[in-house]
Amino acid sequence: MPQHKKTASSSDKASLTLSADLQAAYPASIKKYLKTDDNIYVPFRYIAQSDTLTEQGRVQNPEIAVYDTSGKYSDESYKHDLVEGLPKLRQAWIKDNNEIETLEDFSAEFTHTQKDLAFPKRAKPLKAKQAHNVTQMHYARRGIITKEMHYVALRENLKRANAHIQDPILLKQHPGVDFGANIPNEITPEFVRQEIALGRAIIPSNINHPEMEPMIIGRNFSVKINANIGTSAVSSSIAEEVEKMVIATRWGADTVMDLSTGKNIHQTREWIIRNSPVPIGTVPIYQALEKVDGQAEKLTWETFRDTLIEQAEQGVSYFTIHAGVRLKYIHLTAKRLTGIVSRGGSIIAKWCIAHHKESFIYTHFDEICEIMKAYDVAFSLGDGLRPGSILDANDEAQFAELETLGELTKRAWDHDVQVMIEGPGHVPMQMIKENMTKELKDCFEAPFYTLGPLVTDIAPGYDHITSAIGAAQIGWYGTSMLCYVTPKEHLGLPDKEDVREGIATYKLAAHAADLAKGFPAAQIRDNALSKARFEFRWQDQFNLSLDPQKAQSFHDQTLPKEGHKLAHFCSMCGPKFCSMKITQEVRDYAKEHKLDLADVASKGMQQKSEDFLAQGAEIYHVE
Amino acid sequence: MPQHKKTASSSDKASLTLSADLQAAYPASIKKYLKTDDNIYVPFRYIAQSDTLTEQGRVQNPEIAVYDTSGKYSDESYKHDLVEGLPKLRQAWIKDNNEIETLEDFSAEFTHTQKDLAFPKRAKPLKAKQAHNVTQMHYARRGIITKEMHYVALRENLKRANAHIQDPILLKQHPGVDFGANIPNEITPEFVRQEIALGRAIIPSNINHPEMEPMIIGRNFSVKINANIGTSAVSSSIAEEVEKMVIATRWGADTVMDLSTGKNIHQTREWIIRNSPVPIGTVPIYQALEKVDGQAEKLTWETFRDTLIEQAEQGVSYFTIHAGVRLKYIHLTAKRLTGIVSRGGSIIAKWCIAHHKESFIYTHFDEICEIMKAYDVAFSLGDGLRPGSILDANDEAQFAELETLGELTKRAWDHDVQVMIEGPGHVPMQMIKENMTKELKDCFEAPFYTLGPLVTDIAPGYDHITSAIGAAQIGWYGTSMLCYVTPKEHLGLPDKEDVREGIATYKLAAHAADLAKGFPAAQIRDNALSKARFEFRWQDQFNLSLDPQKAQSFHDQTLPKEGHKLAHFCSMCGPKFCSMKITQEVRDYAKEHKLDLADVASKGMQQKSEDFLAQGAEIYHVE
Repeated sequence: MPQHKKTASSSDKASLTLSADLQAAYPASIKKYLKTDDNIYVPFRYIAQSDTLTEQGRVQNPEIAVYDTSGKYSDESYKHDLVEGLPKLRQAWIKDNNEIETLEDFSAEFTHTQKDLAFPKRAKPLKAKQAHNVTQMHYARRGIITKEMHYVALRENLKRANAHIQDPILLKQHPGVDFGANIPNEITPEFVRQEIALGRAIIPSNINHPEMEPMIIGRNFSVKINANIGTSAVSSSIAEEVEKMVIATRWGADTVMDLSTGKNIHQTREWIIRNSPVPIGTVPIYQALEKVDGQAEKLTWETFRDTLIEQAEQGVSYFTIHAGVRLKYIHLTAKRLTGIVSRGGSIIAKWCIAHHKESFIYTHFDEICEIMKAYDVAFSLGDGLRPGSILDANDEAQFAELETLGELTKRAWDHDVQVMIEGPGHVPMQMIKENMTKELKDCFEAPFYTLGPLVTDIAPGYDHITSAIGAAQIGWYGTSMLCYVTPKEHLGLPDKEDVREGIATYKLAAHAADLAKGFPAAQIRDNALSKARFEFRWQDQFNLSLDPQKAQSFHDQTLPKEGHKLAHFCSMCGPKFCSMKITQEVRDYAKEHKLDLADVASKGMQQKSEDFLAQGAEIYHVE
Repeated sequence: MPQHKKTASSSDKASLTLSADLQAAYPASIKKYLKTDDNIYVPFRYIAQSDTLTEQGRVQNPEIAVYDTSGKYSDESYKHDLVEGLPKLRQAWIKDNNEIETLEDFSAEFTHTQKDLAFPKRAKPLKAKQAHNVTQMHYARRGIITKEMHYVALRENLKRANAHIQDPILLKQHPGVDFGANIPNEITPEFVRQEIALGRAIIPSNINHPEMEPMIIGRNFSVKINANIGTSAVSSSIAEEVEKMVIATRWGADTVMDLSTGKNIHQTREWIIRNSPVPIGTVPIYQALEKVDGQAEKLTWETFRDTLIEQAEQGVSYFTIHAGVRLKYIHLTAKRLTGIVSRGGSIIAKWCIAHHKESFIYTHFDEICEIMKAYDVAFSLGDGLRPGSILDANDEAQFAELETLGELTKRAWDHDVQVMIEGPGHVPMQMIKENMTKELKDCFEAPFYTLGPLVTDIAPGYDHITSAIGAAQIGWYGTSMLCYVTPKEHLGLPDKEDVREGIATYKLAAHAADLAKGFPAAQIRDNALSKARFEFRWQDQFNLSLDPQKAQSFHDQTLPKEGHKLAHFCSMCGPKFCSMKITQEVRDYAKEHKLDLADVASKGMQQKSEDFLAQGAEIYHVE
């Protein structure tokens, strides 16, 4: 990818191609589209497996379907052009909606000032007609199942996507412990509608982001992850950020937040949205602050409002809004070890103190709701007072804000605007559950969206891991989306490798949470990978993993020879010490001597006693 | 380090030096020795901090004492010679023990055949006198507090090592949730003795490893981590393994297991032990198998017995013994997805099936205890039937073996032999707690020593992380020691970087568990690091972290200029968007306007209501 100066020029198309590895299919995978009840097509990735070799001959192993966030990029029949943007999947649905109108021009004043570096083929903005409400929640509450709801219902339905699997072993799954969630065995469009109507789930899907593939965030669905990207005053360019977005979605980001600061925020966002298959979130106060030259006290409602409209008309699907930072809470942070660590929170706090007023975000909350519902932008109610250190976890400031977020949730729901709630931060393990319980109670089960939490402060450089420990737990307890943390957290800006590392780490944490809460069919991939491992189908093991290239390269560092990928021993132990090989030998030995271990096992289930030994002794008789 | 051919030659001393970075002190750190009640000296690492700059001038920040596993290597006044081995810290204590005698020669037959590559300055072996028992448990049960118990009591006493800290903020700590543990506020030698007498903790400390610095493994002490190293038939040399041991202890390994297979197992172990400041564990069946050319069915009690004595006289402090793999349990693995994944377990299973007998390890268990107590080798009762996949977690085979390990624990305790219990493996989060609860019950609170567990199977290449998620949880629930997993798990052999990555990952997981269970003074380091972060003392933040070099290099990738390490903004956000900077501005603003935020805060604690706003409004009055 070129630097952003080139990105802006549509004449320089040759340099505007993504690197080939970002457009290739995944190893041994094809993208297939399943048809919903409503005749729309939902992508899944199907990972092919090689056969198992037995004495009786080859036994076929099924393809494994996995959730696919990567959009068209990984479709081999598709060639992407960054200047064109992605195909507009939702355009027809939106067109059919007679509550939506196309505006002649952009409504935000600021948009008109941004001609340089603009996305060349910019569409006219869409908006709900006067006095109409186009949020998914509004439709849900009127009993209408939207296309988006149909789409996500199938998308969540891993069981249906894997309906071809016959092998009962692959379909086995441990019961989950779900702490009072309500996860159905089959996810139907009607269930999706109900969850959205109740506010327990959201489909962030701005009508100005037709390129997006709908996804759902809620406790009774699979756990999602978000990746943050964005230019900063210190470093990086538009082109780099677009590439990071593609990398993030390729590796599994369900949403991407563009946290750009510095120059060209508007343009960076535009290029990202037009090329993004996932919903884009932002923190509008960042851009508003740039508009007043970084002086928080100069912020005004008018500037902020214009920014919201500007971003809504670009297609941002959720806004982090720090409306819970109330004047009366700010002093609660004075005795903290690390004060206010949310950028947005600190900006609002500074404004409040300087003006000695409630923030314009809090006082204009209903007007914000009016804007949100005209484009279907969801709230991500920001935790401006989240703890920035273990010591500050679960303190009065944090929980006071959470209660206010609950009040605001009700107010947003009065407008049928979708809401999720942001959560900490830094929390030691024994205090994580309290966050989840309190959020469910205070915010009436609105989806929780947490950053980590980090379970210790002592490991900068490894904070993707300290936070994945907390993320897996809080995901299990009921958090709907986990905001990733990269290895660079607290230290520097993530590069492409850090984004990939952060995504893979959060993907595994989210998956661990899905297993723990008992999300239907989540365990199929684990079972298939472990079966491949046990059968020494190395290539299948790599292909089924979250990061096939890394798995393979790690293997090749020890056993680089091609033949070793067919080797019937593990590269860790070598041939003589391979337990899996010996287990197979034990089974072969029993077979050779006409001992049916499996049969013995099934009998043994009822006879776990010393008595069994006597009977077993006969069966095992080998002399 | 040279290849092992050279390592063996003591004349080639020049090439036998560790790389300088493995012998340097840690950044801004000095090793200090604190004196126990018994006049022995226990090392701690003290990390110096720079001053905080305030308007009133400089305020000194205290040194932070941390537990130090690195031995003399990190003592700047010490120069190590690999051919000499480490100084024999415990030699005088052992000499004073008139229950111990020096043998004229090694007792194991095999030892006499191993002349090549031998450690040059080999000491004569020590052993308990006939009919004597020299285990820590035996002394504890007789009411004797050994030097080792004094040593570990102080070593666990982070509170005492940090007694110089005045700042109450640094000393704050959240209460733990300890699931019925019994963690005292101050750890005394008498408490250590009681815990060992009860079998709830062990000090693995073979009398033939006088170089070792004693450490304790038990639920009521800090959570420990183990690193596995070892040559294999596929790769690596003696010298590499010695270097890996030094790296592992430098980064925080509390014990090291030498899992060598292939050639020169005896010699590799000897070089490792003579240079190791931490207890060394082994799996003796690996070497026994090599002695019978890898044919499990040819193993005999005599070969195994000779191996135990050989290793005990070298100074191995704990043996993994898979005595719980009983004949009647083997069939239970037949229907598993991944059979038996423990190397030792599969070897024993193969022997049992071939001979249709209980294993010689099970039938000779009391004789094994007799050997263990003559040298004070602790049992690590191996989980030969641990699950190797999520699907196989907590199954009948695993739990049947665990019950047998409980019976064997009692039998070992009848001999006053120290015991810990090995645990899984692959377990989804919702099933981890059951493992801990069952272990505590079935094995009478003998320390649990777990591998991970990995909470999903789908992330080869990231299994240090999938397992750290499980490890942090099970450590919190009560596991005493966590066996590390490197990124190469399931794929290849870890190199030096993998060892370091695995150690740092497990160190942070163990620390998270210490915080969660409320281990006294554990939070000081978190508090100090977060304070440094908030005050933009970058270098202090790096120095206080688990991996200062990595933290610094990550920072420098974004902001390489030296001046930026003094910068009052975070490299993530840049100067305008730094929340910590803004928080400081808020505090400064309040100060400038004579508003005492802290005072307001303390009053606010009692008045969290709308009423407060009125009063707060006065206090904040700024016009």
